[in-house]
Amino acid sequence: GSRSEDTSIYPLPPRSRSDNKVLPEDFKTPDNHVVRDPRLIRLTGIHPYNVEAPLSELYNEGFLTTKDLHYVRNHGAVPRVEDSDIMDWEFTIEGMVDNPIKISLAQLLDNYEQVTYPITLVCAGNRRKEQNVVRKTKGFSWGAAGLSTALWTGVVMGDLLRTAKPKRGAKYVCFEGADKLPNGYYGTSVKLNWAIDPNRGILVAHRMNGEVLPPDHGKPLRVVVPGQIGGRSVKWLKRIIVTAEPSDNWYHIYDNRVLPTTITPEMSADMPNTWKDERYAIYDLNTNSATCFPAHDERLSLAQGLESYRVRGYAYAGGGKRVTRVEVTLDKGKTWMLANISYPEDKYRLAPEGDELYGGRLDLSWRENSFCWCFWDIDIPVPQLQSTDDILVRAMDESMMVQPRDMYWSVLGMMNNPWFRVVVHNEGHTLRFEHPTQPALIPGGWMERVKKAGGNLSNGYWGEKLSGEEEETVQEEPAKE
Amino acid sequence: GSRSEDTSIYPLPPRSRSDNKVLPEDFKTPDNHVVRDPRLIRLTGIHPYNVEAPLSELYNEGFLTTKDLHYVRNHGAVPRVEDSDIMDWEFTIEGMVDNPIKISLAQLLDNYEQVTYPITLVCAGNRRKEQNVVRKTKGFSWGAAGLSTALWTGVVMGDLLRTAKPKRGAKYVCFEGADKLPNGYYGTSVKLNWAIDPNRGILVAHRMNGEVLPPDHGKPLRVVVPGQIGGRSVKWLKRIIVTAEPSDNWYHIYDNRVLPTTITPEMSADMPNTWKDERYAIYDLNTNSATCFPAHDERLSLAQGLESYRVRGYAYAGGGKRVTRVEVTLDKGKTWMLANISYPEDKYRLAPEGDELYGGRLDLSWRENSFCWCFWDIDIPVPQLQSTDDILVRAMDESMMVQPRDMYWSVLGMMNNPWFRVVVHNEGHTLRFEHPTQPALIPGGWMERVKKAGGNLSNGYWGEKLSGEEEETVQEEPAKE
Repeated sequence: GSRSEDTSIYPLPPRSRSDNKVLPEDFKTPDNHVVRDPRLIRLTGIHPYNVEAPLSELYNEGFLTTKDLHYVRNHGAVPRVEDSDIMDWEFTIEGMVDNPIKISLAQLLDNYEQVTYPITLVCAGNRRKEQNVVRKTKGFSWGAAGLSTALWTGVVMGDLLRTAKPKRGAKYVCFEGADKLPNGYYGTSVKLNWAIDPNRGILVAHRMNGEVLPPDHGKPLRVVVPGQIGGRSVKWLKRIIVTAEPSDNWYHIYDNRVLPTTITPEMSADMPNTWKDERYAIYDLNTNSATCFPAHDERLSLAQGLESYRVRGYAYAGGGKRVTRVEVTLDKGKTWMLANISYPEDKYRLAPEGDELYGGRLDLSWRENSFCWCFWDIDIPVPQLQSTDDILVRAMDESMMVQPRDMYWSVLGMMNNPWFRVVVHNEGHTLRFEHPTQPALIPGGWMERVKKAGGNLSNGYWGEKLSGEEEETVQEEPAKE
Repeated sequence: GSRSEDTSIYPLPPRSRSDNKVLPEDFKTPDNHVVRDPRLIRLTGIHPYNVEAPLSELYNEGFLTTKDLHYVRNHGAVPRVEDSDIMDWEFTIEGMVDNPIKISLAQLLDNYEQVTYPITLVCAGNRRKEQNVVRKTKGFSWGAAGLSTALWTGVVMGDLLRTAKPKRGAKYVCFEGADKLPNGYYGTSVKLNWAIDPNRGILVAHRMNGEVLPPDHGKPLRVVVPGQIGGRSVKWLKRIIVTAEPSDNWYHIYDNRVLPTTITPEMSADMPNTWKDERYAIYDLNTNSATCFPAHDERLSLAQGLESYRVRGYAYAGGGKRVTRVEVTLDKGKTWMLANISYPEDKYRLAPEGDELYGGRLDLSWRENSFCWCFWDIDIPVPQLQSTDDILVRAMDESMMVQPRDMYWSVLGMMNNPWFRVVVHNEGHTLRFEHPTQPALIPGGWMERVKKAGGNLSNGYWGEKLSGEEEETVQEEPAKE
């Protein structure tokens, strides 16, 4: 059965705020029925609602994020579903199946086994602001808090699909939500093979941290696809369509892609075949990390006489892979130090067989995959911080792929994962730390500063002048086609 | 049924040489019974036998590699098995199983379904020579031909394990070969979860390209683990042991690991806990690519008046992932061009249901994973080649992880996958191309040349002097702990 927070061997969510209300800025929008937390940073003006938490506050909540601070990515208005209608919410499984299904949430609860998994969702746009500073992309400016972790309760997608019996030749599963948008309902697809693979852990979920889904998170029903970008986890789920081809939904084709870096926004306007090339569609997350402390603009007084400072942050990998090491450099990559890593997710694997949480079986003991973020930290002697220009961090995953030094810029600005760089300003009695960017239109960060000062952020040296370098060297570009 | 080469919709192996014999250099070794091809390059002296093909010859064989040119990684003497004894070869499934099994190859053929898969095996040391030039590792010097592709016929590992019925708590599957070595029989393990996952495609194989396994490739029986490093594909298989912990075999612990780059060979001698840390064990391959043409020391006459030159090579990713793009730069990463990619493996997916090859079902139509290398090419106008210093290539995989610019040096020198760089020397009437290295002790390549000239190969610029850079800048290292 479920446990109290004190005695649990695995993390339980922190308490969420009881006094959140509909916010005044939402009164005049279609979302005037949605309770929200005022701490969240709006990334696309007032509406639609796309938000991330302040990075420090996200980190300080710990492994699990409350609904208050969980990032939100809404393409349009939030569908309004009254509490009294939740159990009557219906969705279908249709398309290339022998046994099409229409089922209500009440039936889903009655007829299928429920499971509860900890899952980190990550927006494909996490850290996009950095790309936008280098060169404007077609996406809005996420900082490094476009990810959150919750306990999701629901039914394993494979159980549903087996009931529907996919036909021979079926290769994809499309999901469609109730959110009607300028280009139709939001929809996307994943491979059928993944959707029926228990290792992939794909869910149809109706509870988040033990509560009915908040409206911003798909009330009353959504898909949750662990290890993949958030854009595949369709909210307000209405249709599951089994097909022979990937989804032809506009949002599947023109969102959540990493086009080749050669393609500019202007070029991309007239390249339908490139957009439709599934090779450029993002499913599994790439490996990423960020520093949370020191925070942006944090100051460390040298007068305190501290021996060392604990640098801390998060990391994650995609497709169920783990982060196997996190390394920090104070000399721009010449030498590296190994950080400590902790995986709170592993504590759920220790739950006794059959243990339940929020009405769902905690089913992790057999699972090798990791679906959540991890935390890293390293104590750095203060004298070393005083004598360095920057703290850079990179993660490596279990397939020994390491985050790249340089940004892979692309037209949608997604999957940005170069080494995360915090600049250290030694101001005499104080060290001041500077993150790459601040989210949304919030000014600040070394990237904007360097760019304003005429630095070339793509010079392979974070826009800094190379020692002994002539000014022309940076500007010089060989003539190319 | 199997098809003739002319009419097949999928690739069949090129004909292997009929006149290969035991080579004179092997007469005085324990391998004096093993027929080999004289074209293969020996990487560890005469014995044990560790070889790769000349890169151009490997590429020119096409998608499938003959037994003649398939790379070989032997830790010791090749077990001698007479043809007449093959069917009596026995192996066991033991350990944490309810139903321990001892089975002969004859029984394996009679009692289990046979499948045939195309699989690229890659040595974890592929491209290690480059690491050895930067700083000597504990491994010998593979060039970029430490990989090969064959059609492997055998039984799906999951079918065998299901018969043996792993007990609760079992998490690993150890494989042990008949090759007795200074530290015991060669053995290693993979996760049980992978071994029973049909998506992972792990086989117990007894045929290679339709023939009995050659002695160097495990005659008469071996494991083949697609998408993972060759070191997990145990040859001359005698024991499959189901366990709760990873293998404690010496070769599992002290081979096939990527220790953190901070650890030197000297430090590593006294770090048993670091060696045993499974986070550093290599299973899935990382993403990699190399240029095959222009070959090392190839010359392109400018007098011919060619408009363009087709640069060509291979790429692969691990864990069943695909390479989704290959990019080439002529300006050291400032701008990139997109190469064409072909995946001959996909042709097998078109085989009619139930199609058999070499007595095994071609079972690829449902499979999303890719287990083989792909080929890339790009036509580059000759004037562009005349005006560039180098051709660099990198691949990106479907999780949008891109090969790193810089080498991740580690004590065993494994999984080396920085951008592959071919230097272009414009010698007036001719362009001469120079690969990074040549395998084994063969001299040549820009890395040794740059190092001999005093360049620092780790300066983030391939050891070249930065334009306008003072000599001291390269040498200068900030004082660190």
